[in-house]
Amino acid sequence: MTLEERIDQSETRVCTTVFPFLTNHHDTLFGGKAMAIMDEVSFMAGTRFCRKTLVTVSSDKINFERAIPSGSIIEAIARVYSIGRTSLKVSVEIYLEKMYEDGRELAIQGMFTFVALNQNKEPTPVLEGLNIDR
Amino acid sequence: MTLEERIDQSETRVCTTVFPFLTNHHDTLFGGKAMAIMDEVSFMAGTRFCRKTLVTVSSDKINFERAIPSGSIIEAIARVYSIGRTSLKVSVEIYLEKMYEDGRELAIQGMFTFVALNQNKEPTPVLEGLNIDR
Amino acid sequence: MTLEERIDQSETRVCTTVFPFLTNHHDTLFGGKAMAIMDEVSFMAGTRFCRKTLVTVSSDKINFERAIPSGSIIEAIARVYSIGRTSLKVSVEIYLEKMYEDGRELAIQGMFTFVALNQNKEPTPVLEGLNIDR
Amino acid sequence: MTLEERIDQSETRVCTTVFPFLTNHHDTLFGGKAMAIMDEVSFMAGTRFCRKTLVTVSSDKINFERAIPSGSIIEAIARVYSIGRTSLKVSVEIYLEKMYEDGRELAIQGMFTFVALNQNKEPTPVLEGLNIDR
Amino acid sequence: MTLEERIDQSETRVCTTVFPFLTNHHDTLFGGKAMAIMDEVSFMAGTRFCRKTLVTVSSDKINFERAIPSGSIIEAIARVYSIGRTSLKVSVEIYLEKMYEDGRELAIQGMFTFVALNQNKEPTPVLEGLNIDR
Amino acid sequence: MTLEERIDQSETRVCTTVFPFLTNHHDTLFGGKAMAIMDEVSFMAGTRFCRKTLVTVSSDKINFERAIPSGSIIEAIARVYSIGRTSLKVSVEIYLEKMYEDGRELAIQGMFTFVALNQNKEPTPVLEGLNIDR
Repeated sequence: MTLEERIDQSETRVCTTVFPFLTNHHDTLFGGKAMAIMDEVSFMAGTRFCRKTLVTVSSDKINFERAIPSGSIIEAIARVYSIGRTSLKVSVEIYLEKMYEDGRELAIQGMFTFVALNQNKEPTPVLEGLNIDR
Repeated sequence: MTLEERIDQSETRVCTTVFPFLTNHHDTLFGGKAMAIMDEVSFMAGTRFCRKTLVTVSSDKINFERAIPSGSIIEAIARVYSIGRTSLKVSVEIYLEKMYEDGRELAIQGMFTFVALNQNKEPTPVLEGLNIDR
Repeated sequence: MTLEERIDQSETRVCTTVFPFLTNHHDTLFGGKAMAIMDEVSFMAGTRFCRKTLVTVSSDKINFERAIPSGSIIEAIARVYSIGRTSLKVSVEIYLEKMYEDGRELAIQGMFTFVALNQNKEPTPVLEGLNIDR
Repeated sequence: MTLEERIDQSETRVCTTVFPFLTNHHDTLFGGKAMAIMDEVSFMAGTRFCRKTLVTVSSDKINFERAIPSGSIIEAIARVYSIGRTSLKVSVEIYLEKMYEDGRELAIQGMFTFVALNQNKEPTPVLEGLNIDR
Repeated sequence: MTLEERIDQSETRVCTTVFPFLTNHHDTLFGGKAMAIMDEVSFMAGTRFCRKTLVTVSSDKINFERAIPSGSIIEAIARVYSIGRTSLKVSVEIYLEKMYEDGRELAIQGMFTFVALNQNKEPTPVLEGLNIDR
Repeated sequence: MTLEERIDQSETRVCTTVFPFLTNHHDTLFGGKAMAIMDEVSFMAGTRFCRKTLVTVSSDKINFERAIPSGSIIEAIARVYSIGRTSLKVSVEIYLEKMYEDGRELAIQGMFTFVALNQNKEPTPVLEGLNIDR
């Protein structure tokens, strides 16, 4: 398998219906709740890519350009973006769909950095042990 | 768009990490929690297919053949299976991945039936208003 | 104690008020949430009956004949229905009450099958060690 | 129906398995979580008794005499205790069962006072409109 | 450090926005949810004061004099009130603010009693090992 | 009141015990959960400062320099950092305390930007209507 194929395979999707219990008093999704979804989906994409213990190191600047109203369906898609020696960056996009209309638009974009740890909780090479053609 | 393409497009995926707060005292995912995930993901697939108000009518027999241990990643995939006049059936499969190993296996399968409602909460044709080539 | 008395004693009840955070955008209880309640209450009835480790094997077809509106009180009642060698079936009914009116009606019915496990996680006889008159 | 029969009928039970996500770092049920269960079950018993809007006025002193370990089954039982003109008191007891052993013991006792409100949110007679033999 | 300074330092504050998912069908905060917040904040104040394992022994009578509407900000403030040999009392007050108006008012008051435990889960002196001027 | 006094008054604190249900399988607080706490506490500080409807516009880069283990107490402190015409920036710090030891250390720092909206959901001056000495 090439690196690109492994990245394709580890792409991770999470769809959620924005039900009332996820929304604030403006009837839109909490910013913080969106961030928690983005952290979880990018963690899964990174883990599926390298199959190693990952911890979140940082999130880049996140812009909330579009409010996400109650009654929408959102899809978060995370994909490995770049690979360092012991760390990797995962990009994550949240798309917004109206429930009763076709079409979708990009609502939020983010980038999370994770570090891979070995059993002693020390940084370990991300690609070690992976069967990747070079 | 053909019917088949519309079904492909409405396929819906939800990945979840089985963290401790989702598990019982055997350290495996609750049966009931798996059912709730299956209901939500199949609801989204059905809604994206017909873009109409859907309510759950029934779930067919569900077999829990494999326990899902804490620390797994699961992926629920829902896809429209058959279309009646005012109802539709959505099949849903839950795949189980070990967090630190490649590969996956089918863990749970289910089938949910939904009915489409109009604004008076009466059954309404599923395909009405959809732009489908015949 | 007879078998029938032991079944009576292990009957389990869970009342819940259907508050807004349990409902979808039609303002009715999620199908999946009802299934999770049914799994938990039938698990408790089965456990109280045999006092052994139980895991959910399957749920039979469930019909959601009546939507459960926000602001209702529901009562889930689970009762051992039949006993196999290493498994048992528990029936569960959900009754629906209006909050400000007497009377109730059956809203959902289900049947869950559990298997009893010993400490090696192997199937074990359900009735073993129970003090039941025959 | 006599008053006593109406009280019997409105008795309310909630069983819960004390799963890990309900427990603190001593692996026992949170005191605050037990209080929330007690408030909800006594609210339902009071509402079923008078079928009027109730709001919590006070809780009497609550003693937590017994820690409730993870992996227990608890049953909260609420019952109308006394009836004032526009208020009523509901007693609630929490019983503790080991999951894999017969028998139970009283773990927590409480008393909640509710006031009945009419549509203008003013106190209203508890017994008004109820069909009770005197 | 004097006792008074240590009490000042261990005072604990928790602000919460009363979002819809915390409210009942009167659109006000659940009594039980307020009690859970009070238990948690007083537990933290007590723990920060004595740095020992604490378990809740009792809550004194709690009056809910003011309903807390959805869309409010509440602040719970807990402070050690008195110190026994192996137990301590923590008072907790919940203040209510309108979101879009200055000013606040006291909404609920409570008093929680905790006992300090050593590693054998036996009561242990609260002040032992603390560096307090006398 | 001066601007500085108003900023002091609107500072907002949220203490939380990191119980098991908030942690991942490394037994540390989720990055995403920490972000959700940071968004909520900074939203409250901003709202108390300007008493206007705020929506999250962006979060700056967040570094998670220190893992937050289960069984810690964390305190999130949010404070208005700078004021634009229709937007304001709120800085938020999360401090980490061991439960059974005095002392604390800074664990995570962030900066959130909010915009103030009027009733037509258009940006509105942050300071309008506030009684601030200049």
